[in-house]
Amino acid sequence: MEWTERQQRIVEIVKESGSITGEKIAEKLDLTRATLRPDLTILTMSGVLVARPRVGYSYRDDLGPSPIMERLLQLRVCSFKSMPVNILESASIYEAAVTMFTQNVGSLAVVGPERVLLGMISRKDIMKASLGKGDLQQVPVGVIMTRMPNIFMTTPDEPVYSAAKKLVQHQVDSLPVVESFIDENGEECYEVVGRFTKTNVTKIFVQIAETRV
Amino acid sequence: MEWTERQQRIVEIVKESGSITGEKIAEKLDLTRATLRPDLTILTMSGVLVARPRVGYSYRDDLGPSPIMERLLQLRVCSFKSMPVNILESASIYEAAVTMFTQNVGSLAVVGPERVLLGMISRKDIMKASLGKGDLQQVPVGVIMTRMPNIFMTTPDEPVYSAAKKLVQHQVDSLPVVESFIDENGEECYEVVGRFTKTNVTKIFVQIAETRV
Repeated sequence: MEWTERQQRIVEIVKESGSITGEKIAEKLDLTRATLRPDLTILTMSGVLVARPRVGYSYRDDLGPSPIMERLLQLRVCSFKSMPVNILESASIYEAAVTMFTQNVGSLAVVGPERVLLGMISRKDIMKASLGKGDLQQVPVGVIMTRMPNIFMTTPDEPVYSAAKKLVQHQVDSLPVVESFIDENGEECYEVVGRFTKTNVTKIFVQIAETRV
Repeated sequence: MEWTERQQRIVEIVKESGSITGEKIAEKLDLTRATLRPDLTILTMSGVLVARPRVGYSYRDDLGPSPIMERLLQLRVCSFKSMPVNILESASIYEAAVTMFTQNVGSLAVVGPERVLLGMISRKDIMKASLGKGDLQQVPVGVIMTRMPNIFMTTPDEPVYSAAKKLVQHQVDSLPVVESFIDENGEECYEVVGRFTKTNVTKIFVQIAETRV
């Protein structure tokens, strides 16, 4: 859980009070009602607080996620992921940049035979390389990519929520969606089957927020 | 509204039926229940359908957004935006790339005096420039930036939902957050006061999805 300090204080105030109006909470924190609104919205939507007209906010005592959150947690990566855009390790940085343009993506999965994930390359990596002295047409992506096992990944079955959390926590724009298998040497490998990005999360957010048909 | 075709068909089926179980809807569409789950979740969360245990889904007849959506629509850009990261028009592309690295951002607002928005420059623009023959240390960002008035913007008061929709529709990773004012020549100008990005939306999504303190 990653509530802000202010959100934690709001929850404590509501717990102490039994039930309390937004105005009273704002008063206790010496803040305006408008400043508190986003915090109260998030705490209510996530099911920690219950809002009742005229009564105000109270703490939700029963354990378990709220019905809204139960539904949100049912959304899986497989339903929202994008098609994978891959490149071979031997391709040049220049080819990788051109592929990003033509496919309009911010990162590529670098793969070996059978689409096995070897690494990832991002616009940031290419921008960094272009500031150096190397010839982008000569240097292969394998030289500058972030290499396995240092890659954050997701799977088709992972809840969208926890994949989104990985994007935030690890400060990456994209996760490869992978399915694992055991190769002939008995080692675990990951086949790239998609991409899950901040764009996918933003689209889900908009879709949920759309109000009426 | 941007429901998918399948979501529209689900709504029609539910409207026709009065109330109907998920299994029956799946049958009518010749799909599995698992395939339909994300659609049903989104339609229920956005308040178009009401789900009742044992009864199934029914159409929500009363107009106006659902309580969940009313709350979501209250979230404003000002509460979630990031600090602006700006650069002058005369700075070189090289300097812009270095600023993106040191500040760890994917785009910069190009500003004039009083932080007036002149244009935007992204990693994609820099990557494109680096594939050309120009000297990145000599060419100013003003040459390659996307220039006003071709910039999609947001304001502190805009709902997060509609700003997120702009990011999706216009396929940009970041919107400058601006406040407009009239300059001495009587022209409308925009002062850059922040950035609103897909990262901000992803963080809001995760925060909403967090279940319990």
